[in-house]
Amino acid sequence: MISADDFKQAFRLHPSGVALITADPGDPVAFTASSVSAVSADPPLLMFSVSALSSSALSLRLADTVVVHLLAADNLDLAILGAHRGADRFADTTRWRRLPTGEPVFNDVHTWLRARILHRIDAGGSTVFVGTAIESASGSGEPDDGLVYRNRTWHRLAPDSVVRVPELAGSQSA
Amino acid sequence: MISADDFKQAFRLHPSGVALITADPGDPVAFTASSVSAVSADPPLLMFSVSALSSSALSLRLADTVVVHLLAADNLDLAILGAHRGADRFADTTRWRRLPTGEPVFNDVHTWLRARILHRIDAGGSTVFVGTAIESASGSGEPDDGLVYRNRTWHRLAPDSVVRVPELAGSQSA
Repeated sequence: MISADDFKQAFRLHPSGVALITADPGDPVAFTASSVSAVSADPPLLMFSVSALSSSALSLRLADTVVVHLLAADNLDLAILGAHRGADRFADTTRWRRLPTGEPVFNDVHTWLRARILHRIDAGGSTVFVGTAIESASGSGEPDDGLVYRNRTWHRLAPDSVVRVPELAGSQSA
Repeated sequence: MISADDFKQAFRLHPSGVALITADPGDPVAFTASSVSAVSADPPLLMFSVSALSSSALSLRLADTVVVHLLAADNLDLAILGAHRGADRFADTTRWRRLPTGEPVFNDVHTWLRARILHRIDAGGSTVFVGTAIESASGSGEPDDGLVYRNRTWHRLAPDSVVRVPELAGSQSA
């Protein structure tokens, strides 16, 4: 087993997309997660993990459903709100509403998915969640540029960050 | 449950870091994964998922250990190699070596971690893996710019993609 410092150093430079996850198992919770990814499209399954150190961890373990907001660069304020220890995420009631099913949804997010938790796996005090997407919403048109977190810094994926792919030997154009 | 198309559409625009995962449970396998993330630093746990559609899926379920290469922008060729269906990832023997423990490691990758698989969770035919990092290696100096995949496009995280963070009300400078 490697040290926590070596492990953090290794992952510090690994980029990630950014999501805001909300739930309401009694009291509403919202936190920023860099661990959301798709597991399978058919059935539609996603996963994320929550650190034991997160103030939302205990509440989240009680939730049957969550809303996963996939954040774009223009949602940076929401990413910061959900990552800011001690911030009252729900103080500004003009920024969010409740779904008929009770979960909080923040405004101005292009894409969100509501998921039913299928597995909760204990992993060193943290928890890995796997959920089935049971509802999704997307705004019209293309969303804003992508938002990425790496090395304690936020990045915007704009057209000028695109890398041209070299021609692969043996690959064919369509 | 939402449709596979709606689910894919939602996640298409969610950015991710890129890793090359290798193992050798008899025959060596290597595949590109966009689902790697840290779960916990103490103990040092990471997770990733493998689609049931991946040619590496069956072999990987037999592996006790894997090597997770965290790829930077200059490793784009490795990312493409591990994602290219039907490519022989090990044909060029100058590009990789074996660890004393048997797993293949590709050259010119700044950071890799060797992990022992702790949990394999079936999820709709795909598999979620949670592993404990038992060894890591990092090149000297800072690695190259980050590599990100989004919307079937590769991005380089360069200094000009950094987003300035607006001052948070109530936050204090250190």
